[in-house]
Amino acid sequence: MRAVTIKYGGDYNPEQWPTEVWDEDVRLMQRAGVNLATVAVFSWARLEPRPGEYDFAWLDDVLGRLHAGGVRVDLATATASPPPWLARRHPETLPVDEHGVRLEVGSRQQYCPSSPVYRAHARRLVERLVERYADHPALELWHVNNEYGCHVSRCYCDASAAAFRDWLEDRYDTVEALNDAWGTAFWSQRYDSFDEIMPPRAAPTFQNPTQLLDFDRFSSDELLECYRAEAEVIRASSDVPITTNFMGFFKPLDYWKWAKEVDVVSDDTYPDPADPLSTPYAAMVRDLMRSLGGGAPWILMEQAPSAVNWRERNAIKAPGQMRAWSYQALARGADGILFFQWRQSKAGSEKFHSGMVPHAGPETRVFREIAELGAELTALSGPEAGFEGAPVAAHAAIALDWDSWWALEQPAAPTAVAYLEVLFAWHAALTANGLTVDFVQAGADLSGYPLVVVLAHFVLTADQGANLSAYAEEGGTLVVGFASGILDEQLHVHLGGYFGAELRRALGVRIEEFAPPAGPDLRAEGGVPAPPIGIVGDVVGGSASAGLWAEALIAEDAAIEAAFAGGALDGTPAITRRETGVGRAWYVATLPQPEALGMLAARLIADAGIVVPEPAAVGGGVEVVRRGANTVVINHGDGTAVVRLPGVDRLTGASADGLELAPQGVAVVADPA
Amino acid sequence: MRAVTIKYGGDYNPEQWPTEVWDEDVRLMQRAGVNLATVAVFSWARLEPRPGEYDFAWLDDVLGRLHAGGVRVDLATATASPPPWLARRHPETLPVDEHGVRLEVGSRQQYCPSSPVYRAHARRLVERLVERYADHPALELWHVNNEYGCHVSRCYCDASAAAFRDWLEDRYDTVEALNDAWGTAFWSQRYDSFDEIMPPRAAPTFQNPTQLLDFDRFSSDELLECYRAEAEVIRASSDVPITTNFMGFFKPLDYWKWAKEVDVVSDDTYPDPADPLSTPYAAMVRDLMRSLGGGAPWILMEQAPSAVNWRERNAIKAPGQMRAWSYQALARGADGILFFQWRQSKAGSEKFHSGMVPHAGPETRVFREIAELGAELTALSGPEAGFEGAPVAAHAAIALDWDSWWALEQPAAPTAVAYLEVLFAWHAALTANGLTVDFVQAGADLSGYPLVVVLAHFVLTADQGANLSAYAEEGGTLVVGFASGILDEQLHVHLGGYFGAELRRALGVRIEEFAPPAGPDLRAEGGVPAPPIGIVGDVVGGSASAGLWAEALIAEDAAIEAAFAGGALDGTPAITRRETGVGRAWYVATLPQPEALGMLAARLIADAGIVVPEPAAVGGGVEVVRRGANTVVINHGDGTAVVRLPGVDRLTGASADGLELAPQGVAVVADPA
Amino acid sequence: MRAVTIKYGGDYNPEQWPTEVWDEDVRLMQRAGVNLATVAVFSWARLEPRPGEYDFAWLDDVLGRLHAGGVRVDLATATASPPPWLARRHPETLPVDEHGVRLEVGSRQQYCPSSPVYRAHARRLVERLVERYADHPALELWHVNNEYGCHVSRCYCDASAAAFRDWLEDRYDTVEALNDAWGTAFWSQRYDSFDEIMPPRAAPTFQNPTQLLDFDRFSSDELLECYRAEAEVIRASSDVPITTNFMGFFKPLDYWKWAKEVDVVSDDTYPDPADPLSTPYAAMVRDLMRSLGGGAPWILMEQAPSAVNWRERNAIKAPGQMRAWSYQALARGADGILFFQWRQSKAGSEKFHSGMVPHAGPETRVFREIAELGAELTALSGPEAGFEGAPVAAHAAIALDWDSWWALEQPAAPTAVAYLEVLFAWHAALTANGLTVDFVQAGADLSGYPLVVVLAHFVLTADQGANLSAYAEEGGTLVVGFASGILDEQLHVHLGGYFGAELRRALGVRIEEFAPPAGPDLRAEGGVPAPPIGIVGDVVGGSASAGLWAEALIAEDAAIEAAFAGGALDGTPAITRRETGVGRAWYVATLPQPEALGMLAARLIADAGIVVPEPAAVGGGVEVVRRGANTVVINHGDGTAVVRLPGVDRLTGASADGLELAPQGVAVVADPA
Repeated sequence: MRAVTIKYGGDYNPEQWPTEVWDEDVRLMQRAGVNLATVAVFSWARLEPRPGEYDFAWLDDVLGRLHAGGVRVDLATATASPPPWLARRHPETLPVDEHGVRLEVGSRQQYCPSSPVYRAHARRLVERLVERYADHPALELWHVNNEYGCHVSRCYCDASAAAFRDWLEDRYDTVEALNDAWGTAFWSQRYDSFDEIMPPRAAPTFQNPTQLLDFDRFSSDELLECYRAEAEVIRASSDVPITTNFMGFFKPLDYWKWAKEVDVVSDDTYPDPADPLSTPYAAMVRDLMRSLGGGAPWILMEQAPSAVNWRERNAIKAPGQMRAWSYQALARGADGILFFQWRQSKAGSEKFHSGMVPHAGPETRVFREIAELGAELTALSGPEAGFEGAPVAAHAAIALDWDSWWALEQPAAPTAVAYLEVLFAWHAALTANGLTVDFVQAGADLSGYPLVVVLAHFVLTADQGANLSAYAEEGGTLVVGFASGILDEQLHVHLGGYFGAELRRALGVRIEEFAPPAGPDLRAEGGVPAPPIGIVGDVVGGSASAGLWAEALIAEDAAIEAAFAGGALDGTPAITRRETGVGRAWYVATLPQPEALGMLAARLIADAGIVVPEPAAVGGGVEVVRRGANTVVINHGDGTAVVRLPGVDRLTGASADGLELAPQGVAVVADPA
Repeated sequence: MRAVTIKYGGDYNPEQWPTEVWDEDVRLMQRAGVNLATVAVFSWARLEPRPGEYDFAWLDDVLGRLHAGGVRVDLATATASPPPWLARRHPETLPVDEHGVRLEVGSRQQYCPSSPVYRAHARRLVERLVERYADHPALELWHVNNEYGCHVSRCYCDASAAAFRDWLEDRYDTVEALNDAWGTAFWSQRYDSFDEIMPPRAAPTFQNPTQLLDFDRFSSDELLECYRAEAEVIRASSDVPITTNFMGFFKPLDYWKWAKEVDVVSDDTYPDPADPLSTPYAAMVRDLMRSLGGGAPWILMEQAPSAVNWRERNAIKAPGQMRAWSYQALARGADGILFFQWRQSKAGSEKFHSGMVPHAGPETRVFREIAELGAELTALSGPEAGFEGAPVAAHAAIALDWDSWWALEQPAAPTAVAYLEVLFAWHAALTANGLTVDFVQAGADLSGYPLVVVLAHFVLTADQGANLSAYAEEGGTLVVGFASGILDEQLHVHLGGYFGAELRRALGVRIEEFAPPAGPDLRAEGGVPAPPIGIVGDVVGGSASAGLWAEALIAEDAAIEAAFAGGALDGTPAITRRETGVGRAWYVATLPQPEALGMLAARLIADAGIVVPEPAAVGGGVEVVRRGANTVVINHGDGTAVVRLPGVDRLTGASADGLELAPQGVAVVADPA
Repeated sequence: MRAVTIKYGGDYNPEQWPTEVWDEDVRLMQRAGVNLATVAVFSWARLEPRPGEYDFAWLDDVLGRLHAGGVRVDLATATASPPPWLARRHPETLPVDEHGVRLEVGSRQQYCPSSPVYRAHARRLVERLVERYADHPALELWHVNNEYGCHVSRCYCDASAAAFRDWLEDRYDTVEALNDAWGTAFWSQRYDSFDEIMPPRAAPTFQNPTQLLDFDRFSSDELLECYRAEAEVIRASSDVPITTNFMGFFKPLDYWKWAKEVDVVSDDTYPDPADPLSTPYAAMVRDLMRSLGGGAPWILMEQAPSAVNWRERNAIKAPGQMRAWSYQALARGADGILFFQWRQSKAGSEKFHSGMVPHAGPETRVFREIAELGAELTALSGPEAGFEGAPVAAHAAIALDWDSWWALEQPAAPTAVAYLEVLFAWHAALTANGLTVDFVQAGADLSGYPLVVVLAHFVLTADQGANLSAYAEEGGTLVVGFASGILDEQLHVHLGGYFGAELRRALGVRIEEFAPPAGPDLRAEGGVPAPPIGIVGDVVGGSASAGLWAEALIAEDAAIEAAFAGGALDGTPAITRRETGVGRAWYVATLPQPEALGMLAARLIADAGIVVPEPAAVGGGVEVVRRGANTVVINHGDGTAVVRLPGVDRLTGASADGLELAPQGVAVVADPA
């Protein structure tokens, strides 16, 4: 992919409009600084109106117009939404939910990922598209399918059942191995052959946990197979890079596996303008996208120009907010800023989703802001400004693991824990302390990070445990949070106190039993939320409150940095630290409330020897991120922020030392020469 | 229908009781002043115990006893609940929900409205009933079916799918026209033939909005076809008028279309005695019933003598409350006051629904109040009192539109708006200002109304827009509320600022984008309700609070009467007024809180030149309505109200100037001669 | 069953572990004082890995090891969870819910109770087990199936439909009798033959109430037939006693009928340690278990050593809490204290359910407490201590009736009443006043109880009404609470004021209408809970508040002890008392709040002439129960309690007069010689 400029543009669906609108589209794109358009995402039914009959003329026309207008093309394979004729001719391609309900046409994505019929039809379409457009001069990027799994990531039909059995046989080889892994000796679940196994359809009560986890793994893999099959067709005839758009922290798909298969990571993110937590949460998402690509630049493939239409109430982006969030992505590693969609639909299910060109036309606030940002990004493009391709240096890493996410949020757990809630609390605390944070896999090379935080890593293999232990021993600062290392990859308990032997030794602790804070059962009417639990210790500022989790912890060979206070756990360890090798291993057995967690994070940063730069700006809600030789300062707060940095703001040319930023204001401060 | 007297009575289901009870029934009816009984509503299984075998003897007996006792008969066609044998012999007659669940026998109304088998069996039964009873001397009214659609108004079975396709082909003629109307170019939904179309069964995500709307229209029409088929059989042999009982503001059925087909409008209304909003809401329902019939008298076909049995908790009607609400109906145009049901059931699903004769027998408060009201209504009957047939004069009209109701409450909207909540707020504000309000269709002749209010009229055809504009230009006072004129009848957006060209010109405003108040997404755990938004302007009493909706409004050619205050919209228009032709057009971009809305309503009433009579009574919760030459005053409040009217209370003979009304008290004040 | 000692132990599932663990198991059981292990509960798939192929060798080994170690065996029939092969070969054995969803394998209990195929396979397995182990020297008890109906107590499949029709034909003989009983004259539900009847599958609205009730009765009976079939096989070859484990107040099964079929009642109870109401609720459960067996000793078959895993948040049992609750069971009649399960699972759906041997091993608080209790119970065993077989003397009885439970909680009731909430409020009030309470059937011989309380006995047969009336007339103190005697066993209303003639005469009251407190409908968005209602009268301490129910009550021949205050019922009777024969009959028309109910209970106790012994202990949350010649005192409160009883604490040898009990402390005070 030629990184000639910061990419700017959006989804372009001209088939919704008469051709007279197409001319205005290209003119307005030019006015808005658009240089990339994603085309044909939902065009299957138009491209192949009847099985095997193709109509490419209109797409030829669209691509020609864009090319003539200097807009490059991210060409979709159009397989995300099959035409109604596929369902009518092959009803077995329709997905089936766990209650046996077959999902019908009328919306989108109505296909079973394992359906051989769907796959064959999709492949045939991609072959024709590649044949026709592989050498098109406007082609910048291939866009395989769209938001894989956003509505249908699990299918329970008979074809899925058959595919699941094949997948299991590949994984376990013998049914005896599967029985052992799944623990089918309990509840009389022993399978006598693979043929007896079913997807986890509706059942009388809690389903086998390892069956559930394997079905999650299988389902992620099945969609990845769909992607791979299309990418294979493309690669056979085209060198243009390939992406498929991710959706941030998307539970159904293990993006670690997916990211290996794309040439460039791209992401769709729709933060809620009405939610004050959206800004730090979006920062976490952007950090993930950078991390999935191993630090390589990524593309913000979709964001909303203003409001979306799928929430209960859809707030607009305040003036400047779209720009501020766009710079957040740029600062955190994006080389492209795109939107859904170019022209707001006049019909269909997304007509109330904002567009770059609103219903009211271009003489509107929304379009003006789009065009202003386009002009700014054009000015920031190129080697002088130094954004495209520039790296973002991270101080710390948080381990992220889909197996843990899937397993932790299964029913029949010690307590209900939302995996992302834990990661977000820690990411926000580290970020608020001035760090830039990567996400990593627990088995990866961690030596580049002075600080590694492992949270709710419910599933931990022996290798991962050894890797983490070695990281600490070799000088790292390892922080392990509760609900980590409880199970192995088969969801068998690490007996004898949890963690597995190596990590248990590194931490110097073992757990007797989980003792989560609880009120009367929330499932019953009148249930109340769990009360907080107290913790005391200098590392949390003396006395603080925590929640979500607690446990009976034995500090066999570790210093107690904080203890639980009150209740049955009163006085028992809550936070421990152990020096191991030339490094340190902390254990945190609960989730301190934000202020206390912020203090603890500061203590850990210091323990890791990380020197955080002085704040570049003063004011609540100010985000400061360095990318390459630029420091990006964004004022998400309600008041004026004052930037104090050597250097000059590229956007205004003003000195950045004392520069005042209004709310939603942005400065891009170049390092002094 | 012979309006010899105010009709009084209720549903009579003698087949639940041994015949010895029947004698007491007629005696008690006479004691209670009952003159009309609805018979055979749920008698199909008794009338036709096996396919084609009929038993009318018992019904002959019942009708004979009633006739002998002077009680006339509203004879039901008995098709509302098919016998179990129909389901067992023809399981395909059972309705199917959107998840494919076939609804079984055991309750009632278990039929697919499109089922040809059900329709044929229903028709056959009606033919036999008409043949036998068309000339019965007791016959006053035909009662077709019962509460059409109250449980099953949408069916998704294959027969419904076939009927839906036929309906669509009638509407669109070609599949190309349907594709255009439905906007199937988006999300790859293009249909290649009508055969590919399905009802909106469960799907992966938001279904096509126009498909949903057409399915709503189709479903209303299909039940209307059921009605029409029965009415046709009756009319072929009988001149007795025909009704079917409506259910107030019932979303599934477009009663504007239905009302054209009945000879007399009738209504079932069950206000919640535990809800203080029930009284103004019931007033709105009664206004609708009068309006559906074009001002003609209607019948309150069902209300509860005291408690119902289908709420979570079922409050009784306080002493006098049943009478007060009955007078509300009479005042607002009813010529009949009937109940469900005569004798409280001793078994079955409605045994805890109150009856005119309770389980405890006639020596009870409930029966005493029934008999007292019967005596009063007898005294108020006849030309001297002047109720039956007398009109109710309305000052203003609110536009009501089922298409808008259906479309506005679809998912994927700018924000969640409950259509009726908006209409009710305005109806209550106008009523509290002393007006009597009709409901109208936006395309109707509006010239008789000095004030017309158009609220959340999400769907607006070009003709309707022109009609409203012309109404204002020709001297009317037009008030348009938010969420109006956004879409055309195909649910395509009115581009360029909404409203459509003519209405946009009349109002002098356009909308850049919707900006509804929002908190963090309500669909997510921990979501919070939307915060209110401020508005300032003399028309709302200076500074006030509003909710539900806001938008970025441009007043291109209109005076700004109120502006939003605070937030991203601060200072932008919220309420505008424009003089157009010899009339006025207001636009209201949010929902002011009740007090502010009351002030705004007063301003609009004055602007329309409506002179509201001085209050006829003082005290909270007092309702005053004129019908013919009577003023009905009802004290729904907790304290004593003092009536100050010239004339005499027909109920007591007392002077109405200074008459004190206790809570639940009623006065019927005759105009002075 | 040989009551040689207090039974102590738990479920033992060695098939989850390698055999090297089995040796440690027996050693640890001995260390813990375990003398009974429940084996093979979930072993079907292991015992019969393929249809008709059996593997008993491992079970021979397990039983041999236990026997050698001195641990006796409660041998399960292993039919609670069929192997996957049964579902694959006979999918029709899988249960179907009311929406037609067939529940699949992957959890447990996936069988239709009426399936002849399941029954045949279960019977065949039991035959083999009995053949092999009937004479095993370790055998103490047969454990048929497990927790019948805990997940699947109702099945709606075609086999269930056929069985339901047979059951109905047995009950009603003719379809005319059924039509009359079900009241099918209403809503056109008349059945022309039994073949037309279906289970109450999903339907358009409220299903026929008697159909629902008969389906509840049928479903309880069908599972009981499953039990009976297995028990019959056992009894043909074995004299060892038989049990199946109940689940406390379990709505789906009428345990009065079940208890007649077991040789010993056993119970699984999992009080929520996070819920302060768990202790009095568990007391009520234990009283039920004793009552089901007619006062005979019962077995606490399952409780958790510490936390469970199936609540949203699973609190641990605080130190001492497991012991305190175990003594509660012992005091209230249990002769055995067992746990689920011996060794905490390392895999599967219950791995986070605590075990007697935790994941962390025996060197843990949990195992220490298990072993300490084992030692104590060993010391308390035998004739000298006098527990096993000793009776518990009750002062009062509460009537319990599954028909009423089922009928009262149907939809379309006067108001939503949770049956157990009413019973629990009264049980707690009586218990807090120092009474020990039995549960009885309203038709039983009540002469042994000075006080009988009949609550929410919605369904009351004429015989039961006569029995209660006679009880009062012959000198008893009868207390009838609201919602009693409304319906007969066919769910036909007792007309004329409810209660039925005899009970109405005994009470001297009749009801005009139910008038439950209500707010706006809870089913609607924004609904609010019902407000309380006031009551005044000395018996409730002057002025008090009540809730849940109220009614328009006429005291025709009874003294008014309390009246409603406020609202439409102001001044009407709320609590009445009538002397009848040589006894007394009270009626209580609402649910007083706890303090007022406590006062009322004290008044009733005095009226019944019951002399409550002086408190044996002072302090909040102290439970005192006499069993045989021992008084058991348990301090469930947060503070120290002081015991003041003559005699000696068997546990410590200390004098019980002035003995201090810490929280969770227990004293077992022997009557002075």
